[in-house]
Amino acid sequence: MGALGFVVLGGLLSIVYGAWAIRSVMAADAGTARMQEIAAAIREGAEAYLSRQYTTIAVVGVVIFLLFGFLMSWSVAIGFAFGALLSAAAGYIGMLVSVRANVRTAQAATRSLAAGLDIAFKSGAVTGMLVAGLALLGVSIYFGVMMGVAGHAPGDREVVNALVALGFGASLISIFARLGGGIFTKGADVGGDLVGKVEAGIPEDDPRNPATIADNVGDNVGDCAGMAADLFETYAVTIVATMVLGSIYFAGTDLVYRVMLYPLTIGAACVVTSIIGTFFVRLGASQSIMGALYKGFIATALLSLVALLPVTAAVFGGLSVDLAIGDKHFTPLSLFFCGVTGLAVTGLIVWITEYYTGTGFRPVRSIASASVTGHGTNVIQGLAVSLEATALPALVIVVGIIVANAFAGLFGIAIAVTTMLALAGMVVALDAFGPVTDNAGGIAEMADLPPSVRVSTDALDAVGNTTKAITKGYAIGSAGLGALVLFAAYTEDLRFFSANAAQHPYFATVGPIDFALSNPFVVVGLFLGGLLPFLFGGIAMTAVGRAAGAVVEEVRRQFREKPGIMAGTDRPDYGRAVDMLTRAAIREMIVPSLLPVLSPIVFYFVIEAIAGRANAFAALGAMLLGVIVTGLFVAISMTAGGGAWDNAKKYIEDGHHGGKGSDAHKAAVTGDTVGDPYKDTAGPAINPMIKITNIVALLLLAALAH
Amino acid sequence: MGALGFVVLGGLLSIVYGAWAIRSVMAADAGTARMQEIAAAIREGAEAYLSRQYTTIAVVGVVIFLLFGFLMSWSVAIGFAFGALLSAAAGYIGMLVSVRANVRTAQAATRSLAAGLDIAFKSGAVTGMLVAGLALLGVSIYFGVMMGVAGHAPGDREVVNALVALGFGASLISIFARLGGGIFTKGADVGGDLVGKVEAGIPEDDPRNPATIADNVGDNVGDCAGMAADLFETYAVTIVATMVLGSIYFAGTDLVYRVMLYPLTIGAACVVTSIIGTFFVRLGASQSIMGALYKGFIATALLSLVALLPVTAAVFGGLSVDLAIGDKHFTPLSLFFCGVTGLAVTGLIVWITEYYTGTGFRPVRSIASASVTGHGTNVIQGLAVSLEATALPALVIVVGIIVANAFAGLFGIAIAVTTMLALAGMVVALDAFGPVTDNAGGIAEMADLPPSVRVSTDALDAVGNTTKAITKGYAIGSAGLGALVLFAAYTEDLRFFSANAAQHPYFATVGPIDFALSNPFVVVGLFLGGLLPFLFGGIAMTAVGRAAGAVVEEVRRQFREKPGIMAGTDRPDYGRAVDMLTRAAIREMIVPSLLPVLSPIVFYFVIEAIAGRANAFAALGAMLLGVIVTGLFVAISMTAGGGAWDNAKKYIEDGHHGGKGSDAHKAAVTGDTVGDPYKDTAGPAINPMIKITNIVALLLLAALAH
Repeated sequence: MGALGFVVLGGLLSIVYGAWAIRSVMAADAGTARMQEIAAAIREGAEAYLSRQYTTIAVVGVVIFLLFGFLMSWSVAIGFAFGALLSAAAGYIGMLVSVRANVRTAQAATRSLAAGLDIAFKSGAVTGMLVAGLALLGVSIYFGVMMGVAGHAPGDREVVNALVALGFGASLISIFARLGGGIFTKGADVGGDLVGKVEAGIPEDDPRNPATIADNVGDNVGDCAGMAADLFETYAVTIVATMVLGSIYFAGTDLVYRVMLYPLTIGAACVVTSIIGTFFVRLGASQSIMGALYKGFIATALLSLVALLPVTAAVFGGLSVDLAIGDKHFTPLSLFFCGVTGLAVTGLIVWITEYYTGTGFRPVRSIASASVTGHGTNVIQGLAVSLEATALPALVIVVGIIVANAFAGLFGIAIAVTTMLALAGMVVALDAFGPVTDNAGGIAEMADLPPSVRVSTDALDAVGNTTKAITKGYAIGSAGLGALVLFAAYTEDLRFFSANAAQHPYFATVGPIDFALSNPFVVVGLFLGGLLPFLFGGIAMTAVGRAAGAVVEEVRRQFREKPGIMAGTDRPDYGRAVDMLTRAAIREMIVPSLLPVLSPIVFYFVIEAIAGRANAFAALGAMLLGVIVTGLFVAISMTAGGGAWDNAKKYIEDGHHGGKGSDAHKAAVTGDTVGDPYKDTAGPAINPMIKITNIVALLLLAALAH
Repeated sequence: MGALGFVVLGGLLSIVYGAWAIRSVMAADAGTARMQEIAAAIREGAEAYLSRQYTTIAVVGVVIFLLFGFLMSWSVAIGFAFGALLSAAAGYIGMLVSVRANVRTAQAATRSLAAGLDIAFKSGAVTGMLVAGLALLGVSIYFGVMMGVAGHAPGDREVVNALVALGFGASLISIFARLGGGIFTKGADVGGDLVGKVEAGIPEDDPRNPATIADNVGDNVGDCAGMAADLFETYAVTIVATMVLGSIYFAGTDLVYRVMLYPLTIGAACVVTSIIGTFFVRLGASQSIMGALYKGFIATALLSLVALLPVTAAVFGGLSVDLAIGDKHFTPLSLFFCGVTGLAVTGLIVWITEYYTGTGFRPVRSIASASVTGHGTNVIQGLAVSLEATALPALVIVVGIIVANAFAGLFGIAIAVTTMLALAGMVVALDAFGPVTDNAGGIAEMADLPPSVRVSTDALDAVGNTTKAITKGYAIGSAGLGALVLFAAYTEDLRFFSANAAQHPYFATVGPIDFALSNPFVVVGLFLGGLLPFLFGGIAMTAVGRAAGAVVEEVRRQFREKPGIMAGTDRPDYGRAVDMLTRAAIREMIVPSLLPVLSPIVFYFVIEAIAGRANAFAALGAMLLGVIVTGLFVAISMTAGGGAWDNAKKYIEDGHHGGKGSDAHKAAVTGDTVGDPYKDTAGPAINPMIKITNIVALLLLAALAH
């Protein structure tokens, strides 16, 4: 159990780091009484929302837990619960820190940009390390328990099913959290902007706007807790899928335990390098915030590259051991190169995302200059950028697939995507820093801090837009690379059950399954899978529009009934907007979240009734690829496009094309509004949606086999 | 040659109908001198643009013609030229009629709505019948020449290659025409609206706007000529692909000639029923324009249903002949049911499109009410509708595939899509009526006709928005259903060349090709194919934005330099905007049009260099499906969304949510502007793009085999 102990240690180290960073954040000055009052309102709103969200999910979760327990086994049910609880915990703790770091960042920014960056980044790093650490702990401890306590061999079906269920638990939390949080935050943001900036002509975060606290609550529950749950599940599902694939490919060999351990050790090593990397985040002489964050990211990537080689050698007992899957031979060194491929893909996606969403490059500037001719051309150019932004990431993923496949086949692709995600600690840290700075800016505005503070927090926030887009590109990119891994897990599972039809009688009559593109049911599956991200995106966008509309009505009502609000003599009722959005977000998140859960099941049984089991399994498999083929493009276009719109507005606010208040600025605000649900609700929720579709298919196989 | 004679007769009948309808349109009153002056300006602009566009395409065409001639054979080269010329002719003649019918429609609308409808629809019907008739004539005459004059057997490779090249010629014209025309029309429309409606505060089609003639020219070159070329190629390529598939599936049997003839006879029968159907288009007591058009459409569909049975029996010499492909047996009756399936798919797509784009239903009304809260919510809701609108059509296509496949396998799917497209004459008639009424409205406005005329033409135009969306949904839906047909043609061609490697030495070393989804190169192909519609859409949107920006600058310059324009004392220089857009559209159409031509070739050779021929052929095949899987959704979302935005604006202009001039109306104008390039440039051009990718792959196989 030496190597598994190392993995657990890595997970624990992340918690130790988290505890240290929390103490360090909490020790900072929390500002004036007025600031603390505002922060308290944000904190209460966020906590109330998350409690309510988790209570709702718990109802769904308990039902699924019991279904698993009675239909499959209690170790599967417990795996599911464990994954769900840890995913929720990562988001919840991250949010708890974030709502305390915001006011401290605002206060620190009164001293210097560097001080503000320090607190905000530390707060983000807590979330980042917890995401990676808790996922690692969850999978490795439950893997150890299933072997040590329950006495299973590492590659047993029961172990595999329990781990897949753990991944499903994480996914289920994450889609609810991404969607619910996304609807809340963007309903508040869009609604607040429309009625505040556009109708009443007051600036963002003006304390007279009754939706302003809700907007800041949204940053925490959507961009922090929702994002954390999303990355938690991406990380957990990818590691689990790689372990499942390893357990099948190396079944019956004495390598199976090492192969299953390998993705966990990669994760553990990269948690350590991510923690070290956080100490490289320092504002240089150039005062470039992005530069400071990149220093941390590059340090982490390089250290991971260095650490990967000894870890690989240690796990396999050397770098030239012969590893064979069928007639494909490779060595641990080949796997190391797959890991390097994964790191390279991450680096390239970061770079491409910055190109498409940074204010220094053609895409954002083209949107800014299109704003001069009006709202319409701003949106047209934004959509053009969003469509175009999918091309390079897709090419990078394609090259990643070809290279990793050349080194070590499908298992090589699995190792590449595992390594890619092993950097999640650092990537989430960069992202979770965003909502803290966004809140800090809001608090600075509401508490009437000197304008220089807002300049600092705005500078931090602009970088946050890019880092947020990066995380989403990274998560969906990993899903693209991982599509083959999840599909392979599905086909290998199918092959296993068919080969062991004696124990799994359901599969006795299935016969050979034709996954070739010339099978009409494969094309049917591709189309129906392809449909899901579009339909899901449409529902999510509608939900945000509806929530925003409700906010507009509420704010107008308050302005109408309390004319003193605009004069500054009366206080708006912030709580009502928060309550209303909480109810709306919870209500609206249910249907779209269940879409990917139920679609594969319904689809399988419909095709089975029409055309038999073999065609139904072929169609379901194709559906898994269809959902990623369109999902990849829809998600990247939404997240990159939204980021570009947001920063085009910031670019104009920096004084270009007439600056704040100009007609170009008004057009850019429209684009930003459109981009909001694109980048923060619909787009990012597509990643967990893809994963859920895949993992439900795996669980369906296990249930049918039972 | 009896049956082939019937087909040629059907084609000739459409030309006779066209000649009659043209006479009938030309006999109508052409209005006042002022109206004729305006119409002349539009006519000259449209003719100048199309001449220039075709000259540019001719340069590309001559190069390809020579390449085909020297690299393959002159019968292939001539097929290509024939397809290109007929496609161009269909668009050109349609446009010539359209620019003469516009002013006559305006004049007739001074009498009554019914009179206006009559002329506009007759003009559209000319284009519709020519599209179907010329395609039918082209394919059947060249098929006959290849057999009768050149002495080939019906299923010879040389015949197949020549027909595929004919399809390619049509496709090449159509992508240039769709894109060039789309960029012209939407550059003019968006630019003119922005600077006219928004900046100068003058209504659409106000004669003081220097871009107004260009806007009306655009309707003719984009929505009429471009659309006609698009549908021509969809029709021709589908019939050719079905013939190719039949020639391969029934190779060596005595059924091959009948099977190849069958799609042509379906086309011929439906040309006749479409012509009859046009006489059912009559305004009823309810004065419902859509109802009048539907009468014609439903009559055509029902008559086709009735005609299909005897035609099928005549071609095959009975309805219960045994037709076998491998071990799949079916009868001509099964093929009849596949045809019925195709008709049902068409009907459902029409119905769904009307739901998503008609002013009477939830989607358009939701966009209209979202306009009340501003530009941002209008666009958000429009995007939500556009995403959601893909789901039902995709489901219908999926059900169509499953049903047709159950009746007669892949060949049954081919017959379903052929029958679906056999209604093209009627569908194009409904669509081509749109630009005529749009122009009529413009002429009425510019010539200061009484407001009641504009009311009539506006009512006609609103219906035009829906019929335009229907044609696009229909074309792209047929591409979705036809995806498997084109893919099957590709795989069967590959199989043929591999089986006859003695004559085609390139294929000697290919070995078995693995099209299974578990092959990483298949996934790579799906991703790269999936990328094309997004990248293509992005480039097209940027091109429109750029063209519109140039129009805005030009109009502003004219207003600045000639202050008398706004006062009505000076005449704007309409020609400059037309010239400028002509140059811009021609320049911008080149790169995106070549994207689908070159991508499959480059992609094949890159993968071949990396991973050998078998993987390269697998990846290329997957690319063909990838481009349709994302292309279907992107195209439907763009065309339906754009139509919904446009009609949401019209709904508000009809007096809802504050009516014209209200803030909601301003927001709806923004949505309409965004929807313009969505629905009229990027979206519809995706259909020929998909076809070109597929047909280039078929030609690449033929070239490699040579």
